[in-house]
Amino acid sequence: MTSAASRDTAADPIDELIIDVFNRACPSRQAMETVADKWGTLALVALTEGAYRFNALRRRVDGVSEKMLARTLQALERDGLVTRDVQATIPPRVEYTLTAPGTRIAAALRALLDALEAEIPAIMTAREDYDQRH
Amino acid sequence: MTSAASRDTAADPIDELIIDVFNRACPSRQAMETVADKWGTLALVALTEGAYRFNALRRRVDGVSEKMLARTLQALERDGLVTRDVQATIPPRVEYTLTAPGTRIAAALRALLDALEAEIPAIMTAREDYDQRH
Repeated sequence: MTSAASRDTAADPIDELIIDVFNRACPSRQAMETVADKWGTLALVALTEGAYRFNALRRRVDGVSEKMLARTLQALERDGLVTRDVQATIPPRVEYTLTAPGTRIAAALRALLDALEAEIPAIMTAREDYDQRH
Repeated sequence: MTSAASRDTAADPIDELIIDVFNRACPSRQAMETVADKWGTLALVALTEGAYRFNALRRRVDGVSEKMLARTLQALERDGLVTRDVQATIPPRVEYTLTAPGTRIAAALRALLDALEAEIPAIMTAREDYDQRH
């Protein structure tokens, strides 16, 4: 595998791939960039609600442009987190759904958003304090 | 509170602030953008390891520029997730640490990164398949 994830070069003969998101050359960094991104996050969490067609997803993710959503979904599809399902109807019906890995990551994102939402009062107070001092 | 979080206008006389990260006007969206951002994520997770001075944090978060890290830390400080502590030494020593809310959010980010790292093999396989088909 030609990844930049480094190999453990100690005496142990068993090869070990080391995944390190802190290392910019590691493939996990690129995966993280698609997911820890506001549109990636919102798209994945929206899809936990069920299959979505493109325009419905665009309405759900308030503020995203057609172009950004298309780009985000393509990256998520390429990473195997989302399936793009084209049905043989006339006209063709395209639906997006989470894969098993996508479902697991979306669950972790949902937990992150829950943690964040719980802190919103503290965050808003902090901002008022900060803006008064700066 | 002049937030765009909407109030429940039903018959219930008790005011309720509705936090909705899907709504671009909600303050939770802005908080999410700082956190669900690759540099915000990496800075917060790095700080779970302990206090960091700026240059050490910059080395830890491989690839971040001085400017982006400064901007990220300022946003995190403004949101009350990170404390910037200037010690009265000569020269002044500046350390960044997590606040209690920052610690909780960093824990959720760490869980997200763990979930992501577990999927890296599947993600890499998906990318190879996708790139062959497109």
